[in-house]
Amino acid sequence: MNILRSISTIAPAKFSKKQAEKQISSFHEKIFSLQHKLYADSSHPILIILQGMDTSGKDGTIRHVFSCINPMGCNVKSFKTPTIEERKHDFLWRIYPHLPEQGMIQIFNRSHYEDILMPTIEKSLPEELIEERYHYINCFEKQLQASGTIIMKFFLHISKKEQDKRIKARKKDPNKKWKYDKSDDKAALQWDSYEKIYTQIINKCGEETPWQIVPADQKWYRNFFVANQIINKLESLNLKYPS
Amino acid sequence: MNILRSISTIAPAKFSKKQAEKQISSFHEKIFSLQHKLYADSSHPILIILQGMDTSGKDGTIRHVFSCINPMGCNVKSFKTPTIEERKHDFLWRIYPHLPEQGMIQIFNRSHYEDILMPTIEKSLPEELIEERYHYINCFEKQLQASGTIIMKFFLHISKKEQDKRIKARKKDPNKKWKYDKSDDKAALQWDSYEKIYTQIINKCGEETPWQIVPADQKWYRNFFVANQIINKLESLNLKYPS
Repeated sequence: MNILRSISTIAPAKFSKKQAEKQISSFHEKIFSLQHKLYADSSHPILIILQGMDTSGKDGTIRHVFSCINPMGCNVKSFKTPTIEERKHDFLWRIYPHLPEQGMIQIFNRSHYEDILMPTIEKSLPEELIEERYHYINCFEKQLQASGTIIMKFFLHISKKEQDKRIKARKKDPNKKWKYDKSDDKAALQWDSYEKIYTQIINKCGEETPWQIVPADQKWYRNFFVANQIINKLESLNLKYPS
Repeated sequence: MNILRSISTIAPAKFSKKQAEKQISSFHEKIFSLQHKLYADSSHPILIILQGMDTSGKDGTIRHVFSCINPMGCNVKSFKTPTIEERKHDFLWRIYPHLPEQGMIQIFNRSHYEDILMPTIEKSLPEELIEERYHYINCFEKQLQASGTIIMKFFLHISKKEQDKRIKARKKDPNKKWKYDKSDDKAALQWDSYEKIYTQIINKCGEETPWQIVPADQKWYRNFFVANQIINKLESLNLKYPS
């Protein structure tokens, strides 16, 4: 089943922007203080993975949700096309050095899931090798969790219509133009293929560490949703300043 | 001359906390927007070095000045006692991997200057080898600047009296206790030695990339001072969104 098509890309009808904004103003403060306790407590590594179609707002989510965090306790790693050196290694090799230590929040802007996504799109790897990667990623994440890492995976879920709108905006708006890349258009043409692969990823790699599918057509709701999830998770840890 | 003893550790008499707070509320927004342009413009690597006596507020400066920055464009590296592996290499070896790329702000919480400071305090290296390190650091920073990196070095300048007060607070306050370490007391006893070495560092390694000596007894003034310097520097770059 195509799970993505069955999930809305917008906020629930009864939830207004006003309601979200009311809460979000307190979110920054909450995240700031929870992160400080997390850092002092220093027993949980937190790994936040952001995936999503082009223009789905990965950068924007980081900018808005985490901008009031102490950068000393939070690192961001953006994974781009693997370099020549990275290609010479196992696909997880470039991931390991960026795993969080205890007390730290590590954000992956794209992640090891790109190493399933892109080879499938580009047909650059035999199917059976790609199939293996689903399995290796499950093992990898399971092991991380077993050793205490808290993994949160967000799929920023936008509609095709919204993507088209955002690519157009990138081309026009002088403050956004620098983000436009010809590959955006190419990726947009392959919407169906991307959607199919993401559906597989969500189905096959969601048992141990489930994906949160974030309705992301409206930026205000996307930010609200992600911030809310993170606060709930951090609050559930009952963090305390050590004595 | 002991340059540090001639410089105040508090705000100028005519500058009030009220005045600072009035400006500082706009600072976060300014840094947020300048950093976004820096990232888009992607031509300058920024390296911010924080040094200072124990309890001088390095962590606090990062938390307060940079907490409203997008963590995607800002990394913090805290340099601790060198590990066994790090000791097997040249002292700058552990620094290189953390140098900023274009468009990024990298904060060093302590830095290569610790590799002058600690061996001098501990007498763990022959004097002539320590002497060489001053020279190597000057070459290193000069080369970084020549290749386009903008280096800002801050020495957080507190008084002995203020340090004593802060160590006491760390021991008492349940929210600060986790920061207290027995080495704090030891370092406090060696105040004069630390002061002498810092004076040498500021004198010998300040020609190409001058130190900003930050009056840091009052946290509000320290934050104001550092944020103000950073804004001025970023504004001087005339950053623009690329077309």
